[in-house]
Amino acid sequence: MALALSLGRRGQGQCWPNPAVGCVIVRDGRIAGRGWTQPGGRPHAETEALGQAGEQARGATAYVSLEPCSHTGKTPPCAQALIDAGVARVVAAIEDSDPRVSGHGFTMLRDAGIEVTTGVCADEAARDHAGFFFKTEQGRPFVTLKLASSFDGRIATASGESKWITGPEARRAVHAMRARHDAVMVGGGTARADDPSLTVRDLGVTRQPVRVVISRHLDLPLMGQLARSARDIPLWICHGTGADADRLRAWNGVGATLLPCAADGMQLDAGDVLQQLGQAGLTRVFCEGGSALAASLLAQDLVDELIGFTAGLGMGGDGLSSIGSLGLEALADAPRFDLLDVRPVGADIQHRWVRSLR
Amino acid sequence: MALALSLGRRGQGQCWPNPAVGCVIVRDGRIAGRGWTQPGGRPHAETEALGQAGEQARGATAYVSLEPCSHTGKTPPCAQALIDAGVARVVAAIEDSDPRVSGHGFTMLRDAGIEVTTGVCADEAARDHAGFFFKTEQGRPFVTLKLASSFDGRIATASGESKWITGPEARRAVHAMRARHDAVMVGGGTARADDPSLTVRDLGVTRQPVRVVISRHLDLPLMGQLARSARDIPLWICHGTGADADRLRAWNGVGATLLPCAADGMQLDAGDVLQQLGQAGLTRVFCEGGSALAASLLAQDLVDELIGFTAGLGMGGDGLSSIGSLGLEALADAPRFDLLDVRPVGADIQHRWVRSLR
Repeated sequence: MALALSLGRRGQGQCWPNPAVGCVIVRDGRIAGRGWTQPGGRPHAETEALGQAGEQARGATAYVSLEPCSHTGKTPPCAQALIDAGVARVVAAIEDSDPRVSGHGFTMLRDAGIEVTTGVCADEAARDHAGFFFKTEQGRPFVTLKLASSFDGRIATASGESKWITGPEARRAVHAMRARHDAVMVGGGTARADDPSLTVRDLGVTRQPVRVVISRHLDLPLMGQLARSARDIPLWICHGTGADADRLRAWNGVGATLLPCAADGMQLDAGDVLQQLGQAGLTRVFCEGGSALAASLLAQDLVDELIGFTAGLGMGGDGLSSIGSLGLEALADAPRFDLLDVRPVGADIQHRWVRSLR
Repeated sequence: MALALSLGRRGQGQCWPNPAVGCVIVRDGRIAGRGWTQPGGRPHAETEALGQAGEQARGATAYVSLEPCSHTGKTPPCAQALIDAGVARVVAAIEDSDPRVSGHGFTMLRDAGIEVTTGVCADEAARDHAGFFFKTEQGRPFVTLKLASSFDGRIATASGESKWITGPEARRAVHAMRARHDAVMVGGGTARADDPSLTVRDLGVTRQPVRVVISRHLDLPLMGQLARSARDIPLWICHGTGADADRLRAWNGVGATLLPCAADGMQLDAGDVLQQLGQAGLTRVFCEGGSALAASLLAQDLVDELIGFTAGLGMGGDGLSSIGSLGLEALADAPRFDLLDVRPVGADIQHRWVRSLR
């Protein structure tokens, strides 16, 4: 199962809106087939693994990191494929929460006389599939918020200089994280200040994550890196319903996808933004700031994982904060996270936290 | 030598103005005596170890973490004691930079026919004795700056709430760090806001570090914890030359030691404050903020070691910054530090950095 989970993770960021599943077929103690959900979401992991196993699948055990699907979508159901291949036993990590599947996959298998075991490494699988489950259950993607700051939590000097606070190793780690998400998201202020391309570089990825920019008034530079590359790599802009018609036309013209979202006071409503992104199929979103977007996600308790990169330099209280104002009345109201792990990365430290259950 | 260094560190924070030295006497491959500088700075490590070894010292090898002293201070020179005990060989980690000793200790030993080896674990010894060397060479103590903050570098909410950002394990680690320094230092704002006692608790220390408060106008609460305990545990207040005479009298009356320091604009000059503290004998100072004091130390490049405790909570840009304004023109001007180590401590992370040589 550990192998199936690890194979499944290869598909993260590559196969949305489908879950990134891994499958291993074992016959007589030997691995007969391995598979994971392919870029774009098809073929599914089971199809891949069964294809490799061929006749060896007969009487074998299939380990899958998620309940095999039971419905006919763009591909026939995997549960049927496992039955047709003559598999004797299926070991699954966790039940699918998609109402079209939820338990039906297991029932199909059992009805065909296949022995089914489930709940093996369920916690790990729940974490791996969190994005897919979130989208299915809450309609929004899983959100990872990354903040790279100085020792004192600053992301730019008072004069606006931000390149580079962290070192090349940390920046490379960020590219690897981008590749494991369906989309990279920033606020309009960051898009204006940094003119980022938000692509994954030097890692040989086959499918770039969608670039998402949150900009209520759509006041983004049409001559920037994002606009220039919008025909080659998806660029989605979440904007307010009152955005200027000329700007809408212009961004449509350069190839951006426009997603109108509800506003909440001065800013777009982060909850609605994520609902729109979920509806458009995203399961895992990697948010890289800036401070206003980070604050509105945190204020609405919409950050599932928090990743910090801390550099060994002090920038001072006049620098730009990593998180905007939260207007906390009391310390007890602060959004809290539990430590997952911490490690040095080059000259910086990387620390990962998950939403606290306390 | 590793043992001698480790024994020496037992005296850190306990034996200022003297260096915290460790000594091991080895005869025929067996440890005949161990010693370290005792609380208050006397007896010295060599005296302790020779006392334990007794007649076994004759013909033995003495490992010492610092060059044995050659001058008669309040105790006779240790170099002479080693000669008198009939030691055959002395292995020292590093030469003493005190001009009264610097090389003379080794010369005395060699002149008496003792074989001397030096430079063993010199880097580690240089680090351990950094406070004593700083005081001797630059007139100021070694400064450790500790900042415990939220994920986004805040030390209090906008409403001023700061208890507790980090957990009990981190706070306990801070008490252990206090115990390894000669003094604990805070700014006047922190003394007013937190009413701290700045003592080492629950660790069974025999000698509390000096409490140092930096307050230009001496506008500190006379009814607080610091004032109340000033007769039992040393309390030093660094103040401006223009401080109110009534306040000076009042603080003198509760038992505080008053150190007049030069001002630098609106604040006391951090460089002069440290010179005064060095002159008063301190070798290692543990600064716990607040943000204004942290900023003035960093701005003058007076922080030798930086220790961060980061908690998994976001407090927002309207919270109080861990470091005050530095007025940096460019990112290249930011004070930089190199990572020493990082580890989880309870629910928080602890990261230690040293002044960068880049």
